[in-house]
Amino acid sequence: MTHGQTVPVIIDCDTGVDDALALLFAVRHPGLDLRAVTCVAGNTDVAGVVRNTLTVLEQAGAPDIPVAGGGGRGPRPAGPPPPPPPHVHGHDGMGDLGLPAPRRTPADVDAVTLLRREILASPRPVTLVPTAPLTNIALLLRTHPEVTRNIERIVFMGGAAGAGNATAVAEFNVWHDPEAAAILLTAGVPITMYGLDVFTRVVVPGADVRRLRASTEPGTRLAGELLAHRPATPGSRPDDPAEDAGGLGDAGALCAVADPEGLTTHRLPVEVSLAPGPTRGQTVVDRRPRVGESEIHGDAREQPLVDVGLDVDVERYVRLYLGTVERTKA
Amino acid sequence: MTHGQTVPVIIDCDTGVDDALALLFAVRHPGLDLRAVTCVAGNTDVAGVVRNTLTVLEQAGAPDIPVAGGGGRGPRPAGPPPPPPPHVHGHDGMGDLGLPAPRRTPADVDAVTLLRREILASPRPVTLVPTAPLTNIALLLRTHPEVTRNIERIVFMGGAAGAGNATAVAEFNVWHDPEAAAILLTAGVPITMYGLDVFTRVVVPGADVRRLRASTEPGTRLAGELLAHRPATPGSRPDDPAEDAGGLGDAGALCAVADPEGLTTHRLPVEVSLAPGPTRGQTVVDRRPRVGESEIHGDAREQPLVDVGLDVDVERYVRLYLGTVERTKA
Amino acid sequence: MTHGQTVPVIIDCDTGVDDALALLFAVRHPGLDLRAVTCVAGNTDVAGVVRNTLTVLEQAGAPDIPVAGGGGRGPRPAGPPPPPPPHVHGHDGMGDLGLPAPRRTPADVDAVTLLRREILASPRPVTLVPTAPLTNIALLLRTHPEVTRNIERIVFMGGAAGAGNATAVAEFNVWHDPEAAAILLTAGVPITMYGLDVFTRVVVPGADVRRLRASTEPGTRLAGELLAHRPATPGSRPDDPAEDAGGLGDAGALCAVADPEGLTTHRLPVEVSLAPGPTRGQTVVDRRPRVGESEIHGDAREQPLVDVGLDVDVERYVRLYLGTVERTKA
Amino acid sequence: MTHGQTVPVIIDCDTGVDDALALLFAVRHPGLDLRAVTCVAGNTDVAGVVRNTLTVLEQAGAPDIPVAGGGGRGPRPAGPPPPPPPHVHGHDGMGDLGLPAPRRTPADVDAVTLLRREILASPRPVTLVPTAPLTNIALLLRTHPEVTRNIERIVFMGGAAGAGNATAVAEFNVWHDPEAAAILLTAGVPITMYGLDVFTRVVVPGADVRRLRASTEPGTRLAGELLAHRPATPGSRPDDPAEDAGGLGDAGALCAVADPEGLTTHRLPVEVSLAPGPTRGQTVVDRRPRVGESEIHGDAREQPLVDVGLDVDVERYVRLYLGTVERTKA
Repeated sequence: MTHGQTVPVIIDCDTGVDDALALLFAVRHPGLDLRAVTCVAGNTDVAGVVRNTLTVLEQAGAPDIPVAGGGGRGPRPAGPPPPPPPHVHGHDGMGDLGLPAPRRTPADVDAVTLLRREILASPRPVTLVPTAPLTNIALLLRTHPEVTRNIERIVFMGGAAGAGNATAVAEFNVWHDPEAAAILLTAGVPITMYGLDVFTRVVVPGADVRRLRASTEPGTRLAGELLAHRPATPGSRPDDPAEDAGGLGDAGALCAVADPEGLTTHRLPVEVSLAPGPTRGQTVVDRRPRVGESEIHGDAREQPLVDVGLDVDVERYVRLYLGTVERTKA
Repeated sequence: MTHGQTVPVIIDCDTGVDDALALLFAVRHPGLDLRAVTCVAGNTDVAGVVRNTLTVLEQAGAPDIPVAGGGGRGPRPAGPPPPPPPHVHGHDGMGDLGLPAPRRTPADVDAVTLLRREILASPRPVTLVPTAPLTNIALLLRTHPEVTRNIERIVFMGGAAGAGNATAVAEFNVWHDPEAAAILLTAGVPITMYGLDVFTRVVVPGADVRRLRASTEPGTRLAGELLAHRPATPGSRPDDPAEDAGGLGDAGALCAVADPEGLTTHRLPVEVSLAPGPTRGQTVVDRRPRVGESEIHGDAREQPLVDVGLDVDVERYVRLYLGTVERTKA
Repeated sequence: MTHGQTVPVIIDCDTGVDDALALLFAVRHPGLDLRAVTCVAGNTDVAGVVRNTLTVLEQAGAPDIPVAGGGGRGPRPAGPPPPPPPHVHGHDGMGDLGLPAPRRTPADVDAVTLLRREILASPRPVTLVPTAPLTNIALLLRTHPEVTRNIERIVFMGGAAGAGNATAVAEFNVWHDPEAAAILLTAGVPITMYGLDVFTRVVVPGADVRRLRASTEPGTRLAGELLAHRPATPGSRPDDPAEDAGGLGDAGALCAVADPEGLTTHRLPVEVSLAPGPTRGQTVVDRRPRVGESEIHGDAREQPLVDVGLDVDVERYVRLYLGTVERTKA
Repeated sequence: MTHGQTVPVIIDCDTGVDDALALLFAVRHPGLDLRAVTCVAGNTDVAGVVRNTLTVLEQAGAPDIPVAGGGGRGPRPAGPPPPPPPHVHGHDGMGDLGLPAPRRTPADVDAVTLLRREILASPRPVTLVPTAPLTNIALLLRTHPEVTRNIERIVFMGGAAGAGNATAVAEFNVWHDPEAAAILLTAGVPITMYGLDVFTRVVVPGADVRRLRASTEPGTRLAGELLAHRPATPGSRPDDPAEDAGGLGDAGALCAVADPEGLTTHRLPVEVSLAPGPTRGQTVVDRRPRVGESEIHGDAREQPLVDVGLDVDVERYVRLYLGTVERTKA
């Protein structure tokens, strides 16, 4: 983040409880210039995602940021897998918090067209932050490859170097459209993977969540409600007494844009497993030592190098998140 | 083809010797209203394809038809396979005939945008005729699915129910981007497959080719030069003495639009083989009897039904082709 | 078949109506020396196959030929697919003809052990004729590779260069255990593929079937009953009036051993498709021209060459079959 | 290990430096009754493996234990991958230690036959310990499934829940013959996986290695030489100063048989990835929480449950190993 300059950011999401946490953060962080939000099916259908996104921007008091929904199926030849069960994101995909319908309306273009327009229109290269299946992004990259000249980097929530969640080894966003993720990784722009290895670890303590929920400021209170809906996921601090503790989830990827030094990354070869079978959708991260290796016999094909997030400063990102959503942008 | 009305047609091609034959036919057939041509890499790179296409339209005396090139890689996660060797389509992808550079220029939009615009702008539903890898078409269908409401049907040159050419069982256009072909087949619009089973059979006799080459009309003479460059492919009439005989190739797919009754089709389940291995890119056509079958044990998943061309009236299409290119549109 | 010498033959089968026809032929043909029969699950479970096989040998008046059943699952990692529905081979796997239980008993060893023993014990190299899933054969070849030194060739019923029966493109025996078939093809011994392209074409006319059924000789009558149970499959002579007409099926592979000149074969590369998906179990036969090919772009990996049966002299094999089963071996 | 009774053990190995360490341990541990050793290609070709195995047994002063080599290729349809480079196991596959050629000779049967005979002949159920590609074991299980009735359990060195060594995610033994490993996992006998997650961690300190090398007892000295050839692999104790430190490798799997309580296992679903691509040969271990899981959307097919070693008491196994090889069996 250049001193004195904000980072132009576009989020592609499937709002979604933790996508909402990410939107709140992006709207309120003074160093981020959120220029557009595009929506894709994932946590719920695309119409629901657009509605949830508009509601969150409205509650957060965001300026008039253009929002558009994607057509749907992306580059994955097969039909999409089913959405997650309602207990994860609620029947409305965002926790069933009883939020009002938005007064805002989506832009009059589809997601890919909006992405192309806003990326090319940005005065400085855009940081693209997908927190959802990579359908829109892949279609954008293949239909309009010229956009890469004004993309600074892509920080995506997705993948896992270790265990998965959608399957034993696959993370949900990548598993949902593996071909799209494969297209992303080979796009030729710098990519940071904010995957399950760090995603599940950034948990806001219960006391903080309760304070947010008690706020009279709508955006802050919404952050509290959303966090209370987030389980303290596997990897949360086991000594945390309060059941109100909630994981930042997707919002951590925005923290990594605003404060890159809180995330420890390694530049590693990553390949998406596309074949049918138990590893479809796995992000195969090669963590083997690069030099002096003693028992490497296998395939040495060149894979794209990705900055894989393998460790995260939990305290730092929790402080950053709370400090950001508890103030309104000046 | 409704009486008294022309058929609005858009061709997506990788011109290419036989794509050029198809363009000549489409420009000159009175029943076809060629509204746009989009280009994709295949026989040669996309810049070469656009140049060849503009040259052919110019030589054919076509009206000012918009032409646009596609960005490239399509929904196929892996990189594209290499182009065919020069002996197939020449170093310029179109037979090295020494044609002049075109004075015409491409449209100021990319192929997908032009396809969307022209399909939605057509007063009657468009017949889309891809004679190349299906990259552009798949990106169109997934990025702008609303176009299907103004597509009458898609008649594509590609696939094979029997033997392949790019591999033992895969035809070149489908093999070049199998994921794109899979997306096409499941687009929910009527599809006619003009595959290798008929493609290689429609051969113009040498005497006719020689007559075309002797013409002083530039478009007619170009058709003759192109045909002379086409080998009488496997499946050509073995009794044809003249080495000048040339296959219509892609142009046969346009004949099937102008005169559907010359093509015998069966409505059959078709699935594209996507897995790595010896069948990648195969169009798996299920020709087993539908009723009374005696030894069916396998998988009965529902596949999309496609009108697969299995026989062709060779004489009829040769006459149709010659009669069309030897006159100029009134 | 060397003059004056019989051909040592071992059949591996899943008796099965047409396997039974093959056994009857092998027992009665003077040029064939049937030395053992091994059994594998396929048309029915392995216990049923052993019982059916013993019954047929008994009814045919065969000498005391050793019979053994295989353990089961073969090299295929996944579990086996389900057996065919009862209307194909009857509830007993052999037409529900009400045959008596056999008095003969199987050998005291498993199929692989019997195969190894009998192949190595044969005074001259054995012709191995699998007419069933290739499970036993693959285990034999991998567990005891030394047997290949006394195998003359393998003539197997299985595969298809054109349409399949178990799936759109896969024949039942290969589809049932594709890994086993792949092991067979790379065993390094001469292989003849008697696949669906010829299998379905050799049909015994109804008048002949009726004559066989009226015989008082048990083996001949059994052949008639079995043929009457065989539908005149797709590819049968359409002018045959009688519903009694029946296809030789597996027995044709034995005809091809006794009279190789009745089968037209081409030496072609063949590879089994193993990946999950619509082509699993397909025998990918490369029929593209070897020289002067004009549009070959694909993979040129070396595949094993197989003598693929592509045409058959139907009259000759019908005469051969009838002439053989209607006499008893002197 | 029942009090007062030894555990009948059969090792299937590809000796190999660390296989040799395992053999030495098995010969000298009073609680283990090593009844046979079978050999398979892997670290070197099968003839070399047999020779190395006989040499080690001789040097260890073992009783006359039958040794047999396997035919080779196993159930894997494709040809085997290349052996590891010489720096891993030396040109002789066992460290180029200049050991004398063995006076002992192999048994007069192949590996599968020996395995079957010795398993069925054992007075008590056998513990089978493969420390090599699972080729022989898979052929045994499929050709002679009746052996499972006298197998207590299978403790195999192979697989990884985390990072791989042959590829990013695949361990060498499983990657070398994935179909064989898949057959093992579904054999229906209790299975313990001693994979890379524990394999690389059990390292003998340099001082101990130097003491072993200084011994005048041939077997003890051989253990020292072998350990000195083993790099202190990734995962070794970083505070170990001596470059002589060496990993137990395969020998750890024998420790887990002699002293199961030193290995912490979890009973987890494990599936081998078989499809071509970057995960072929991966052991997909599902470590997701079984109850209360919050974000599981994927496939819930039943996989075989395996006791996966995830932690190991390093001190305990080092002491066990040294205490065993430094004494001769009374």
